[in-house]
Amino acid sequence: MPLVRIDVIEGRSDDDLRRLADTVQDVLVEHFAAPERDRYQVIHEHRPGRIIALDTGLGFERTDEVVVIQITQQGRDEQQKKALYAALAEQLEARCGLAPTDLVVSVVENTPADWSFGLGRAQFLEGDL
Amino acid sequence: MPLVRIDVIEGRSDDDLRRLADTVQDVLVEHFAAPERDRYQVIHEHRPGRIIALDTGLGFERTDEVVVIQITQQGRDEQQKKALYAALAEQLEARCGLAPTDLVVSVVENTPADWSFGLGRAQFLEGDL
Amino acid sequence: MPLVRIDVIEGRSDDDLRRLADTVQDVLVEHFAAPERDRYQVIHEHRPGRIIALDTGLGFERTDEVVVIQITQQGRDEQQKKALYAALAEQLEARCGLAPTDLVVSVVENTPADWSFGLGRAQFLEGDL
Repeated sequence: MPLVRIDVIEGRSDDDLRRLADTVQDVLVEHFAAPERDRYQVIHEHRPGRIIALDTGLGFERTDEVVVIQITQQGRDEQQKKALYAALAEQLEARCGLAPTDLVVSVVENTPADWSFGLGRAQFLEGDL
Repeated sequence: MPLVRIDVIEGRSDDDLRRLADTVQDVLVEHFAAPERDRYQVIHEHRPGRIIALDTGLGFERTDEVVVIQITQQGRDEQQKKALYAALAEQLEARCGLAPTDLVVSVVENTPADWSFGLGRAQFLEGDL
Repeated sequence: MPLVRIDVIEGRSDDDLRRLADTVQDVLVEHFAAPERDRYQVIHEHRPGRIIALDTGLGFERTDEVVVIQITQQGRDEQQKKALYAALAEQLEARCGLAPTDLVVSVVENTPADWSFGLGRAQFLEGDL
């Protein structure tokens, strides 16, 4: 169920983008307890200069490799979120070469009533899931 | 007031996209009790491969026709959401030929204070609406 | 921390977009008490017709200059939001020539646990910020 928007500056190959998306999904499956086929990702590619990300004074610089991930979901707690952030940084570095300083993640919460995965049904309300 | 993001893979004509957006708006007017000129839609077109949508194990496949609709709004209840999903699937199939398996809808809730429709005013707080 | 999506119709120059983004950031720093380097902006440029924004019956027309700003944040109250909307309209007009009727703003709330600004850490939970 998480709906995941991944914003990047253009320039990555199709394969690189797919590996990025696969990695994000694998981490969601492990740390957000998402079923394997519970995958809803939208990759937004932008021209240079269209992502402006500073550091909130934390003491690092971003590059044009920066990846902004916005996740809309419901039901995960603080521990799961902390584990998710750590695993995203670690796995994206290991598998995609992304610097942990080039990763920004933001989560938005909604409710079971806020999802329809197809067929016009509210699957969480109607016992389909 | 709903702010509606519609994500699609590129390839639909201007007319097809307009029909898609019109249909979504008509359903919002009917089932979310939106006034007719309460229309705020952003259509994101993506290159192939930039939307990855599986089925959460529900037993169907998506195609590149898939449409992801994310609605930010406030004040609708579960019954309205269920009615909205059903009507979106039905109307988008009838008017746009969209397979009900190619529709994903996600809703996010905010509050009356979270909207400014123009002129720098918070219309819901200031009695304009 | 606010994550700000700015949706526009294509056609503005790089400089114009930068001025737009800078203005939004300056207003956030002043009215949402954002630290200066607390800046996370994504500018989405769309082909004509991909933003459809009417007026909820308020009595004005939008142009293709329309700017839709969606802000995900936590912790600001109604007074701050009202001040933000007013200042955005005023400053975007003064510095970018944007008509106040061409500005739409929507805010979404999350929580301190919902942010990781880098390094895989939940900075608000772990005492980094």
